[in-house]
Amino acid sequence: MHQLQAPGRAGRAMAEWAKQLAGIKGVVLDISGVLYDGGGEGGGVPIPGSIEAVERIKASGLKLRFCTNETQATRGKFVAKLQRLGFNILVNEVTAPAPAACRILKERNLRPHLLVHDDLVPEFDQLDKTNPNCVVIGDAADNFSYKNLNEAFRVLIGLENPILISLGRGRYYKETDGLKLDVGVYMKALEYACDVQAEVVGKPAKMFFQSALAEMEVEPQQAIMIGDDIVNDVGGAQQCGMRALQVRTGKYSIFSTLMENLFLYLVELETWNVSCTNWPCDEQHPEVKADGYVNNLAEAVDIIVKQLHK
Amino acid sequence: MHQLQAPGRAGRAMAEWAKQLAGIKGVVLDISGVLYDGGGEGGGVPIPGSIEAVERIKASGLKLRFCTNETQATRGKFVAKLQRLGFNILVNEVTAPAPAACRILKERNLRPHLLVHDDLVPEFDQLDKTNPNCVVIGDAADNFSYKNLNEAFRVLIGLENPILISLGRGRYYKETDGLKLDVGVYMKALEYACDVQAEVVGKPAKMFFQSALAEMEVEPQQAIMIGDDIVNDVGGAQQCGMRALQVRTGKYSIFSTLMENLFLYLVELETWNVSCTNWPCDEQHPEVKADGYVNNLAEAVDIIVKQLHK
Repeated sequence: MHQLQAPGRAGRAMAEWAKQLAGIKGVVLDISGVLYDGGGEGGGVPIPGSIEAVERIKASGLKLRFCTNETQATRGKFVAKLQRLGFNILVNEVTAPAPAACRILKERNLRPHLLVHDDLVPEFDQLDKTNPNCVVIGDAADNFSYKNLNEAFRVLIGLENPILISLGRGRYYKETDGLKLDVGVYMKALEYACDVQAEVVGKPAKMFFQSALAEMEVEPQQAIMIGDDIVNDVGGAQQCGMRALQVRTGKYSIFSTLMENLFLYLVELETWNVSCTNWPCDEQHPEVKADGYVNNLAEAVDIIVKQLHK
Repeated sequence: MHQLQAPGRAGRAMAEWAKQLAGIKGVVLDISGVLYDGGGEGGGVPIPGSIEAVERIKASGLKLRFCTNETQATRGKFVAKLQRLGFNILVNEVTAPAPAACRILKERNLRPHLLVHDDLVPEFDQLDKTNPNCVVIGDAADNFSYKNLNEAFRVLIGLENPILISLGRGRYYKETDGLKLDVGVYMKALEYACDVQAEVVGKPAKMFFQSALAEMEVEPQQAIMIGDDIVNDVGGAQQCGMRALQVRTGKYSIFSTLMENLFLYLVELETWNVSCTNWPCDEQHPEVKADGYVNNLAEAVDIIVKQLHK
């Protein structure tokens, strides 16, 4: 029998990267896939140990900031949901794309046409939306109808200088009823339709991480990002000069499950020369390499807190 | 007062490119925007002179082929509509993406998951669609819902070797109720979501033009394409070694109207140093240059037929 093993885990001892934790003063946490799993109508469930892990960071004296690309609800509503799940989290501890976009729109006198989730609309209440001179696109889910995408397209193509602001650039995410396309896919669609380049507000944009660091009053080299997305969390934070850990929960585990199913299928067919070292996964991403890998947030916090007391 | 003039038209005499028509034995006609305008529920209206122009080509002894990226109906239904509008056109004179895709699917033993217009589905009746091993995407219009795009995405992401076949790569087209996003936009969306490159069946793919030429038994250098789309019609045909004319009807006129409105707006604001030579339009496309420009199909046929008798 072939024995399945988590990819890359074997050869990489915790201590190996823990040494690089010196000087950490602030922690930036991704939310979905790190604190909790699921979403959709059900609301999701906390990932085991993550509620306590947040408490431990707060008790340790480390500064803490939550950094999410969530755009299916206002920041207030999203935080209330996390509080109901048991997390010690406040609205003003969260960096989210919609409030960041609102600041940019105000600064540049932009009047948005919104293609976003119904529950996100109140975030833009204070802005003038008549005679729009830009399009803001978020994770609109079922609002990504042909009709709505056409409307956004017509606004853009009618502008002398088309401005498309995208709240994130994710490809897909997992909900309880399966994989769902994310905002980045529709951003690419409009980019192609109008021959424009979107401005991304949210991870992995450098400005987004810088804004989270500014809130914590911590320098990039003093901060560590913990996320499940190799490109948006890990790559984005590293581009900004931060260190970054990838957790093996959330999106990571979706990918692993897909690969595991494919692997088992190939083994069954005996068409594949099985080698765990060639296992394709995020830990062998061609462009991004995390500073460390942990099974979950609880394990990451264990190591970070231990390192603090050395 | 500023005088508006059709862009680029002034300096380019017909005779200039008519000289290059020697040796033409076959004509390939785009349909939408060349034969008729509109579409949608209403069905559209013939462009003045185009019904007679088709008759004149047929009477001239030139070989004729219609080449369309239309995928909102079966070829049979589409041709029946054109016949009702008054055109002398037969099903077997039309090269269309869906029948071409069917041939490819059969040759490669592919079982498609279809994301197409309801009216196109019968075109794939003869194919096994159980346990799909590829996705075929057409101009699905209102079928481009979030739900349907997610379904196509899940099929692709679950395949060991994801194959995405796109019936065209158009950005948008005009219907009576305004501009509509075309299949290419959703092709780009799925390409990004799954990190794949679609195989395009339809214009501007070289194979598609080659198949039209083979039906006419004419060499590329003996054929001329007449279309309204600078990239898909003109660029595609030229890539294949054919000559190509752009008509100033259909898509061309949509673009001109948009530019004209913008131009008038800028003139009104007095923010623009008006210069017709700088007018941005398809005739100054950065990569593609047509062999000639005509106001409409009737004018093109006039010149081609005259040239035949020299």
